[in-house]
Amino acid sequence: MTFADKISETTVLVEQRLADYLTGARGPVAPPEKLAEAMRYAALGGGKRLRPVLLIESAALFGVRAENALDAAAALECVHCYSLVHDDLPAMDDDALRRGRPTVHLAFNEATAILAGDGLLTLAFEILATPQTHGDPSVRGELALGLARAAGWAGMAGGQSLDLEAEDQQLEVNDIRRLQALKTGALIQFACVGGAILGRAEGESWQALETYGRLLGQAFQLADDLLDVTGDTDKLGKETGKDSGAGKATLVAALGLDEARAELERLEGEAIASLEKFGDSAHTLREAATFVSRREY
Amino acid sequence: MTFADKISETTVLVEQRLADYLTGARGPVAPPEKLAEAMRYAALGGGKRLRPVLLIESAALFGVRAENALDAAAALECVHCYSLVHDDLPAMDDDALRRGRPTVHLAFNEATAILAGDGLLTLAFEILATPQTHGDPSVRGELALGLARAAGWAGMAGGQSLDLEAEDQQLEVNDIRRLQALKTGALIQFACVGGAILGRAEGESWQALETYGRLLGQAFQLADDLLDVTGDTDKLGKETGKDSGAGKATLVAALGLDEARAELERLEGEAIASLEKFGDSAHTLREAATFVSRREY
Repeated sequence: MTFADKISETTVLVEQRLADYLTGARGPVAPPEKLAEAMRYAALGGGKRLRPVLLIESAALFGVRAENALDAAAALECVHCYSLVHDDLPAMDDDALRRGRPTVHLAFNEATAILAGDGLLTLAFEILATPQTHGDPSVRGELALGLARAAGWAGMAGGQSLDLEAEDQQLEVNDIRRLQALKTGALIQFACVGGAILGRAEGESWQALETYGRLLGQAFQLADDLLDVTGDTDKLGKETGKDSGAGKATLVAALGLDEARAELERLEGEAIASLEKFGDSAHTLREAATFVSRREY
Repeated sequence: MTFADKISETTVLVEQRLADYLTGARGPVAPPEKLAEAMRYAALGGGKRLRPVLLIESAALFGVRAENALDAAAALECVHCYSLVHDDLPAMDDDALRRGRPTVHLAFNEATAILAGDGLLTLAFEILATPQTHGDPSVRGELALGLARAAGWAGMAGGQSLDLEAEDQQLEVNDIRRLQALKTGALIQFACVGGAILGRAEGESWQALETYGRLLGQAFQLADDLLDVTGDTDKLGKETGKDSGAGKATLVAALGLDEARAELERLEGEAIASLEKFGDSAHTLREAATFVSRREY
């Protein structure tokens, strides 16, 4: 099975689990309909579901069945979707298009978009705290702690803050790397580490997934920066040239196109190499590294 | 010790614990400074700390020492503070003044205010997932589940969504009650139930705190609505007449001033009565019901 097949198979499962949560089918109280509708719009019917796939595949290395990683994967995707909704807001990146559709604040309104993001972020932790997510409360707690750190002020939200500060500033290469490690890297790394938590991985296995996640996060962001310069709006489902146009600090601008491409190739190779100890069972994760590095959308 | 003494004593403890977290002293990675500064501005140096006091006092009914409830109390206050920051945003209630100071989006900027709220919400769940918050992971999980439900789409965020929809609408009294139960009631009720979780309360004790929390939440919101009509901007540290001016649905408008006052008195009495089984040990919580109902700020 190729990574593309795998990703479509998993996408169906994740989509269904997210839909279960977002129709309120798994909660005790019905939420107000307008907010629920905006949250469904933000989280369903689109997206590569890369992070859930990484979490499910990382957990699979330790024999965890996809079914038993789906709730954690759905929680992680809620956090990713919340971050897109808030990042797209007029006060932030002011984006009109996401996954080929109007962004949430345009399809609804700004207040609803803020609340839909808040609601998705909170739902993620509700899911992780729910006993059916995992039978062992300390596993649920580790997942919540890891996700909160990856998403919070010293993770994704912190990275977004640095990114906003960086507009019209000339950042050093190392500052750009730190910014990207927080903004995009932390959550992708958590996807892999989350699989290790579900699989109760230890020692070298844990470290291998941590390393793989870090390299994959770097590759993902570098590919994103390259696509912003060379990509196609139709394929991407969002506007290109925005980051470079806004004077945002990207590694492509700092390193130049050729060096950026060479670094991306190096990251892809290192990510694949970091999985050596898992042998054939890491086949899909190796393909994920190639997919992430060479994607066109 | 009067409730006013108690609240000042607990405020010092909560303030210190929040400051510990918000200087990053308890986390593994240093957050970006600008975002951290906005989060400290939003969460430190003000506020009645009513919810932390309720949580600590509810837990104390079961012999839990304040020291052992402080992390949960700090997490709860982070959620409360995040909600104020987001509610004050221009796209939401567009408030300029909070606790007698410029709101976060005016003191910093709108993007930073959105991220500071996101960061505080995420930090709350980081705190609850941290082993030092409670030795038993299932207690930590119950706290996180309860807080997420109280704060999320079927709780506080849902209530704020209904509140925004309600502008320039004529709501029925029952719709206003539902709106307020979600928007303000859920988190105040969780403060009391959170104490029951920490105290491993069961049966009647749990139900008594659930009832007390519900009644107190109703009293709090009704007092708030009355203060919006009759209160003093200087004492309140925020503008008055905003809700009635914006055509917002309040119980005072729906019931009239006299009936609203009578209902508030009834709620105060019922809240106090709900604590009967705890005898003298619920002294402070009884005073809290009076404080909440008769406050001038």
